Amino acid sequence: MSLYLPVICGVIALFFAFGLSKGISKESSGNDRMKEIAAYIHEGAMAFLIREYKYLLIFIIIVTIVVGVLIDYKTAICFICGAIFSILAGFFGMRVATKANVRTAEAARHGQKKALKIAFSGGAVMGMCVVGLGIIGLSILYLGFDKNVSFISGFGLGASSIALFARVGGGIYTKAADVGADLVGKVEAGIPEDDPRNPAVIADNVGDNVGDVAGMGADLFESYVGSIISALTLGAFIFTDSPTKVMFPLMLASLGIIASIVGILFASNSKNNNPQKTLNTGTYIAGAVVVIGTGILSNNIFGNFRVFGSIIAGLIVGMLIGKITEIYTSYDYKSVKKIADQSETGAATTIISGLAVGMYSTMIPILFIAVGVLVAFYIMGGANNVSMGLYGISLAAVGMLSTTGITVAVDAYGPIADNAGGIAEMSELPSSVREITDKLDSVGNTTAAIGKGFAIGSAALTALALFASYAKATNLSKIDLLNPVTLVGLLVGAMLPFLFGALTMESVGKAANEMIEEVRRQFKSIPGIMEGKSKPDYKKCVDISTAAALKEMILPGIIAITAPILMGMLLGVEALGGMIGGAVAAGVLMAIFMANAGGAWDNAKKYIESGENGGKGSNAHKAAVVGDTVGDPFKDTSGPAMNILIKLMTIVSLVFASVIANHGGILLNLLK
Amino acid sequence: MSLYLPVICGVIALFFAFGLSKGISKESSGNDRMKEIAAYIHEGAMAFLIREYKYLLIFIIIVTIVVGVLIDYKTAICFICGAIFSILAGFFGMRVATKANVRTAEAARHGQKKALKIAFSGGAVMGMCVVGLGIIGLSILYLGFDKNVSFISGFGLGASSIALFARVGGGIYTKAADVGADLVGKVEAGIPEDDPRNPAVIADNVGDNVGDVAGMGADLFESYVGSIISALTLGAFIFTDSPTKVMFPLMLASLGIIASIVGILFASNSKNNNPQKTLNTGTYIAGAVVVIGTGILSNNIFGNFRVFGSIIAGLIVGMLIGKITEIYTSYDYKSVKKIADQSETGAATTIISGLAVGMYSTMIPILFIAVGVLVAFYIMGGANNVSMGLYGISLAAVGMLSTTGITVAVDAYGPIADNAGGIAEMSELPSSVREITDKLDSVGNTTAAIGKGFAIGSAALTALALFASYAKATNLSKIDLLNPVTLVGLLVGAMLPFLFGALTMESVGKAANEMIEEVRRQFKSIPGIMEGKSKPDYKKCVDISTAAALKEMILPGIIAITAPILMGMLLGVEALGGMIGGAVAAGVLMAIFMANAGGAWDNAKKYIESGENGGKGSNAHKAAVVGDTVGDPFKDTSGPAMNILIKLMTIVSLVFASVIANHGGILLNLLK
Repeated sequence: MSLYLPVICGVIALFFAFGLSKGISKESSGNDRMKEIAAYIHEGAMAFLIREYKYLLIFIIIVTIVVGVLIDYKTAICFICGAIFSILAGFFGMRVATKANVRTAEAARHGQKKALKIAFSGGAVMGMCVVGLGIIGLSILYLGFDKNVSFISGFGLGASSIALFARVGGGIYTKAADVGADLVGKVEAGIPEDDPRNPAVIADNVGDNVGDVAGMGADLFESYVGSIISALTLGAFIFTDSPTKVMFPLMLASLGIIASIVGILFASNSKNNNPQKTLNTGTYIAGAVVVIGTGILSNNIFGNFRVFGSIIAGLIVGMLIGKITEIYTSYDYKSVKKIADQSETGAATTIISGLAVGMYSTMIPILFIAVGVLVAFYIMGGANNVSMGLYGISLAAVGMLSTTGITVAVDAYGPIADNAGGIAEMSELPSSVREITDKLDSVGNTTAAIGKGFAIGSAALTALALFASYAKATNLSKIDLLNPVTLVGLLVGAMLPFLFGALTMESVGKAANEMIEEVRRQFKSIPGIMEGKSKPDYKKCVDISTAAALKEMILPGIIAITAPILMGMLLGVEALGGMIGGAVAAGVLMAIFMANAGGAWDNAKKYIESGENGGKGSNAHKAAVVGDTVGDPFKDTSGPAMNILIKLMTIVSLVFASVIANHGGILLNLLK
Repeated sequence: MSLYLPVICGVIALFFAFGLSKGISKESSGNDRMKEIAAYIHEGAMAFLIREYKYLLIFIIIVTIVVGVLIDYKTAICFICGAIFSILAGFFGMRVATKANVRTAEAARHGQKKALKIAFSGGAVMGMCVVGLGIIGLSILYLGFDKNVSFISGFGLGASSIALFARVGGGIYTKAADVGADLVGKVEAGIPEDDPRNPAVIADNVGDNVGDVAGMGADLFESYVGSIISALTLGAFIFTDSPTKVMFPLMLASLGIIASIVGILFASNSKNNNPQKTLNTGTYIAGAVVVIGTGILSNNIFGNFRVFGSIIAGLIVGMLIGKITEIYTSYDYKSVKKIADQSETGAATTIISGLAVGMYSTMIPILFIAVGVLVAFYIMGGANNVSMGLYGISLAAVGMLSTTGITVAVDAYGPIADNAGGIAEMSELPSSVREITDKLDSVGNTTAAIGKGFAIGSAALTALALFASYAKATNLSKIDLLNPVTLVGLLVGAMLPFLFGALTMESVGKAANEMIEEVRRQFKSIPGIMEGKSKPDYKKCVDISTAAALKEMILPGIIAITAPILMGMLLGVEALGGMIGGAVAAGVLMAIFMANAGGAWDNAKKYIESGENGGKGSNAHKAAVVGDTVGDPFKDTSGPAMNILIKLMTIVSLVFASVIANHGGILLNLLK
């Protein structure tokens, strides 16, 4: 019975998502104008997905063949499942999100509470799909392949591949549209944000869904399954006699699903008027349920509280990183205020101080991760039993991600509220509606920043856990930095996040330029567009973003996938180990740096717009707008892309571990 | 006899420097106005040095006591010598540079060739002092302490400590003055660069000497002696029976000194009218002499050409990195032109594209370093004899740095030419003079960028070589990334360059703000200052830069010195090994990223000023000025500071290796 518990919990999650989705559908989607705009956004989002699927189909076929031939057919099947399950989670999540946005706007006519509930329910569908599909897929494959864990890394590879498309492609999409819409619309034409006369406005709103809902969901889906895969793999090596203990990570994930549902129900029905508090309380309740449940589980299955300690270490580190992110990126704290002050002397000082804040903000999260890793390792007795210690680290990752259901819900709520505001603006709803959606949106900005911090932390811990699995899979006894080959791997690995950052930022620049030219063209060539008499060609802008995003993610994607294979084949398993180490270290740092610098610039601008440092239209404000524009690709494209890079490289190494171990190191052999 | 050859070559270098210096002193220092301005700059530079020495005295006393008590008195003596020799090199170099500047300006009245010769001779004094004092100090201590290499790491620590003050403090100084002078003078008051009415103009010119002459010299002095120390240390472990072989790195350095002198003589007496070509040819000739001489030495001492291969690998990688740096930062190539194009859409796109160029530019240098490391290791037979392979890597570092004499000369020539231009402007010399100094200055910008690339490459290789010595000194058999403690070290180590970057950038911001306020105050409170009727208070501005630079470098300095000791004491030698690995990897990347982004922004602005993309005064130009201002602390403060960070951390670890190996890992023992 307990074998099927994870599947049952997964099914419960999907039913819960279905119920939430039905509830949203029942709500009114407002007047004709609102329906029309919502339809544009919905169609745009689906257009992106369908175009993406075409690319994905080719990609999946190629990788399936490669994996099937080089590894085995079971891993290939796992890969296909991982890819499809991630696609499904993104599809359902985005479908419901693009329904919930207009209904949130309509509900805002009748007050904040209902609007919050709909937006949050929309996000919760994404959250539940992520955890439900993740656990169902993993459990069925694990049980279906006779509890042999050696194939399920393929599931992680599938999840990672989709995350690459969704997060990197989505990140380029959303920022190309955003920057394009802003630079021509706001700056050149002088029309407000979300103005329906701006041809890029629909693409901008679609981008929120593509990048912040589907992209973020796929990113966390990858972390979620990656951490479980790592714990299952390591557990199978250790507990050869106890399938129950091997299954433990799945039990823990099941507990997290129940905890998330409890938290979501609480938040949805809260009487509190402060949306931030409502969401926080829901998250804390879910965390509390996990803590209590884990204590019981840990004691029942392992007969002690060591496992409990590792898991709680992960959970606490995750929450702390979120909090730290808030401190560096919210304008209630001094870092953002300092950037606003520095904006008074012009754009250069805005940029310098923002970069400094971003770099500075890496310190505490890294120290937290370091402490978390040590606690998780040593509490499991890692000093005497390294394998158990590494297992502890992987459990910390699972623990951190156990409440992914509600984390994604809170995170995906933001773009829905943002979209609702856009729809309200474009449909010319009364300003009271816009006030409510603005308030919800501003809470969404904070939750987005926290969610980003969490995504980075979880990516780091997941990658470290998978790194340990990689070493087990290749039978590596050490990855020795005194071996120059490892050192070379380390240097090259550390370089990849910089290369990835450069490529993705340039991609946003290129795509945004195409968008800018198209918007300018429409402003010039469509008569009556500025007077609102004739409609802009939204579809063309959506097309441009879609095509550019998918084209531009090919090169970074190829680099992320081939670099580890190339390194392994040329310089062998140990060099590849060094490369992963370097990529994870530099990648996590670049991710925190870029995400927090971007978040801080964004809020420095908002702070000034709230009337500080001269307020809107002042020179400080102009400087802050420059910071915000630089921050856009930082926080929404390149920063999050690092998560994908480090996880994808690690899982590729794990999947191809046997091939590299047996046939790798070609150049090394020549050098000898 | 051959034992004393290095000392003799060192003495030759100093005599050569003395001769050059005499030659410069003989030249005319122009009219009274020129003499007056030159005196201001000279006094300002000396004021900085004297104030710095007060801090240094305290610092040296403390560290001497710590080293004397914890390690031994011989290492402490070496430390004092290393510090004093580096101070002397900086003192002589800067003294002559502040004499050469005005004489270059005066010589420019009589044509470019003579001006070039004086400026280059001034730089050559710095170069010869660096290599001469470096090799004399090392040789005498090595011979004096009975050829026992275990103490001379103290010499490296001394050199590193001074480099910290000179490079980080100097970097903050020069950019505070530069940014302060530009923002109020050029932007607010609308007066041209180097205008004598600007109170910060002298501080700005002093900054060129403090940061670009003394700072750069101390940085390369540190790399130079660090690489030799590493090779001596490793050689002593390997060649227990052959003092000649142990001495080899000193012989190689001697050869490099002769080669540099040949190159300098050639360049000084070249008939070529193209200054860039003249300097390049000198460098290549020095390189060729090293190549030929090394081939002979290698065969004579080791009986084969393996050693030759390692050394040449280092030399070639150093020159290639310089060339690559030029490609990414010179406006003859497409990266800089792209930034200029992107400036047409405003400051935000200038910044984004510059950051992307900087990140992108890390790829090739890292791959070159990787290849160089592998070649140097395997050509020495590292596959079968790891120690020999590591020795090969340290020889590659010595090889790369063998021509430091002429490299520093070419590099220090730039700020002298820059100063000459400033003096010409302030003394209202005919525009033909300014044209010549401008041409020399623009060549200086390219050589500075190349020099920066070289400094980074050499810092990386030196740090890697010292890293190998550290492992030997602590008897570490491995630094295993599968040990979570090493992984934690790696993460924390990789974080430090980000922290260092944040701190140094903030320091520039703070110091620049003080400068801005002072300049504004003087413009307001000194009547007739804008009409040129009354003199600004230059000294006050020099004071502000000096005080701020020395105050602001304390915190980063303490972090760089204490972090490795703290990590070693808490988590042990292996964690410290991981930390160095992480710091070197991330530090090199950040250094390349920041230096090249800054260089590219600088030249994008110059490219636009040359009439492209709308030319001076256009919107593109305004955007490019923002990029240049952000780039200033990037390329001249934070970027170069990374070199110091990684070398200082490594040498601290090496010096305290025995203490950490015997008493470290306190927390680790508690966790067990």
